Amino acid sequence: MKQVVVGIDIGGTNTAIGIVDREGNVLYEKKPQLPTPQKKENPDSRPDVSEKLVANFISLITFEIRDAIENVKKILPNIEVMGIGIGAPFANYHDGTIGITANLPFVNVVHLTDLIQEKLPEFTIIKATNDANAAALGELMYGGGIGMNNFIMITLGTGLGSGIIVNGDIVYGHDGLAGELGHVTAVPDGRLCGCGSKGHLETYCSATGIKRTVFELLAKTMNSGSALANVNYNDLTSKMVYEAALQNDSIAMEAFGYTGEILGRCLADAVHYLSPEAIFLFGGPTAAGELLFKPTRESMEHYLLPFYRNKIKLLPSRLKAGSVAIVGASALVWKEIDKCK
Amino acid sequence: MKQVVVGIDIGGTNTAIGIVDREGNVLYEKKPQLPTPQKKENPDSRPDVSEKLVANFISLITFEIRDAIENVKKILPNIEVMGIGIGAPFANYHDGTIGITANLPFVNVVHLTDLIQEKLPEFTIIKATNDANAAALGELMYGGGIGMNNFIMITLGTGLGSGIIVNGDIVYGHDGLAGELGHVTAVPDGRLCGCGSKGHLETYCSATGIKRTVFELLAKTMNSGSALANVNYNDLTSKMVYEAALQNDSIAMEAFGYTGEILGRCLADAVHYLSPEAIFLFGGPTAAGELLFKPTRESMEHYLLPFYRNKIKLLPSRLKAGSVAIVGASALVWKEIDKCK
Repeated sequence: MKQVVVGIDIGGTNTAIGIVDREGNVLYEKKPQLPTPQKKENPDSRPDVSEKLVANFISLITFEIRDAIENVKKILPNIEVMGIGIGAPFANYHDGTIGITANLPFVNVVHLTDLIQEKLPEFTIIKATNDANAAALGELMYGGGIGMNNFIMITLGTGLGSGIIVNGDIVYGHDGLAGELGHVTAVPDGRLCGCGSKGHLETYCSATGIKRTVFELLAKTMNSGSALANVNYNDLTSKMVYEAALQNDSIAMEAFGYTGEILGRCLADAVHYLSPEAIFLFGGPTAAGELLFKPTRESMEHYLLPFYRNKIKLLPSRLKAGSVAIVGASALVWKEIDKCK
Repeated sequence: MKQVVVGIDIGGTNTAIGIVDREGNVLYEKKPQLPTPQKKENPDSRPDVSEKLVANFISLITFEIRDAIENVKKILPNIEVMGIGIGAPFANYHDGTIGITANLPFVNVVHLTDLIQEKLPEFTIIKATNDANAAALGELMYGGGIGMNNFIMITLGTGLGSGIIVNGDIVYGHDGLAGELGHVTAVPDGRLCGCGSKGHLETYCSATGIKRTVFELLAKTMNSGSALANVNYNDLTSKMVYEAALQNDSIAMEAFGYTGEILGRCLADAVHYLSPEAIFLFGGPTAAGELLFKPTRESMEHYLLPFYRNKIKLLPSRLKAGSVAIVGASALVWKEIDKCK
C-alpha cells in the first residue's frame, strides 16, 4: 500500500486540490482549479447568502476530493489515503476554522475541517493552517529546511506571510494563528496596511510594497527618465520593477535596496526573537535574486547582535513554485502522522 | 527522599546560590551572596588574568554548592540533589557556555557547565540559560504561567530581558540564545543601545529607558517645575520617576505613558509572532502598576490585529522578587527531568 495525502490550497481566486505522496510528489492535481467563492458573490454581506456559499463550497471540495482519489486509484490501485491537509487564509490549526477575512465572502467563522469531516467521515486526520505555515512545513519536509529544527519561512506576494519552525514543528501559539510577521510594525506611523494599522512590514516588503516604494521614489525624485515613470499604478507589477532593475534603472534599483533595508532590519528582529538556523524567502519578488537578497542580507547583518553576525543563512526557498501550496498543505498531515509515532 | 535542586544566579554584582524543592521553596540560600568577578579585576582584558578569574570563580561556586548541600542535610538528612540549574548573562542552554559580555571580565567564552561538571562529576544534570529565560521557566512552574503553554516573560531592569514559552517549554533556538527582545528595533535610528545599535526596545522600555525618557522630556518641554528637574542624570532612578508620578508630576506621568506606548507596540509585534496566551512583566519598573500597565495595555490593543484584541492577558509576574533568580534557575533542572519522563 502506497500512503498518500490530499492537499488543498484555498487561494484568493482559486482552490487547488491534489494528491501527494510521502516524498512530496504530486501524483494528481485537479485542473482547472476550483473557483474560490468571491466577495462579489455576497456584496451585501448577507448571512444567508454566506451560509449557502459555504455549503456549496464544501460540497464542491468534498466531491473533488473523492474524484481526485478515484483518479489516482486508476493508476495506483493500492493507495491508502492518510488524511487531508488544507492551507487557507487565516485558517486556525487548533480548531480547523477559517476566520473572517477581507478576501472571502463568508460572514461568520467557517468550521472548515468539521464540515469536511461530516461529509467524509472516513478520514481521521483533517488539518488546516494558513498558507505560509503550510509552505514552511513544505520547506521543512521537502525543501531547504530538511534536517533543520529552527527556521523562519517568509512568503512574499500581495502581502507578506510567515511560518516559524521551532524544535522541528510550526509555532501555532495559543490561538493557533502565530507567525503573522507581515503585521509587525516596521516603520512606526508608516504606510497604511490592509488590516487598518500603519507601518506594517508587508506594506514595504511584498510585491505590493515594492510597487508603493517605486511610486514614493518617483514622487520624491521626479525621475522622469525611469522606465517606471511611464507605467500607471494599477498596471505596475514587481516583475516590471525587477526587469527595469536589470536595465540599471535607478528607481527600480533603489526600490529593491529600500525593500531589502527594511526587510533585513525586521529579519534581524526575527533572529533576536527566535535564533533560527536559516531564513527562507519564497514568492514572486524573490525571482529578483541578489537584487533583493543582497540589500536584505547586508541590512540584516548590520542590525544583528554581534553574536549572530555571519551565522544566519538567508536562503531562497527550494520549493517548486507551482506545487508548493498543495505540497505544503499535504505536509500538515505527514507531520501529524509523525507526531503520533 | 526529598528531591531538591541547586539554583545559581550569576548576576552582574553578586552570585546567589540556593537549594530549592519541587514546589519552588528555597530551603537554603547562601548569605552573603558570592561576589561575581568584576571588569575592574581585569582592566587590560588579559587572557591569563581572565583564566585565573574563571578558575577561582568555579572553585568558589563548587565549594559553595557542596557547602549549601551540607547545610540543608543538617535539617533534612534525606535529600536527593537532582542537578544544578544556572542563570547567567548570555548563558547558552545548548552548550552551557557564557558568551563574552560587556559586564564580565572574562576574555573568552567560559564553558561554565563543563567546568562545574569536572569538579562535581556526581551531577548528571547541569544546565544554564540566561536570567530572563530562567525567570520565564520560574513563571511557568511556580508563577502565573502554571497551566499555560504559550506565554512571554518580559523582565524590566537595567535592560529588557525576555523568555519565550512555546508548547510548554523555553524557545532556545538554533544557537541557544533566542528571546533577546530587548534588542529588537523599536524606533528605527533611535537611541543608542549598549550593544552598539540604535533604537532597540530596551533603550526605551527598562529602568534606564524611563530615565532617558525623563531627560528627553525635560529637554523638550523645559518643565522646570517638575520634581525631576532637580535630579541629575546619575542620581535619577525609575523609582523616583514612579514616586513623582504618584504626585501627578507631568513629566513623570508622560514618561510612563511614552514607555507604555512603545512597549505596547512592540508587545503587539510579539503577539503577531507568537500568539501567546499571556505576557508577564517582571522587575523594578512594574512596581509602578497601572501607571505602566495601563498605557502599555492600551498601546498593545491599539496595534494588535483585530483577531487578537481583548484576548491577550498582560499580567504582572507572580514570582517573588527576592528569590526569583534562584527559583528560576532551579526550574531548569526540574524541566529537564520532566522532559525525560
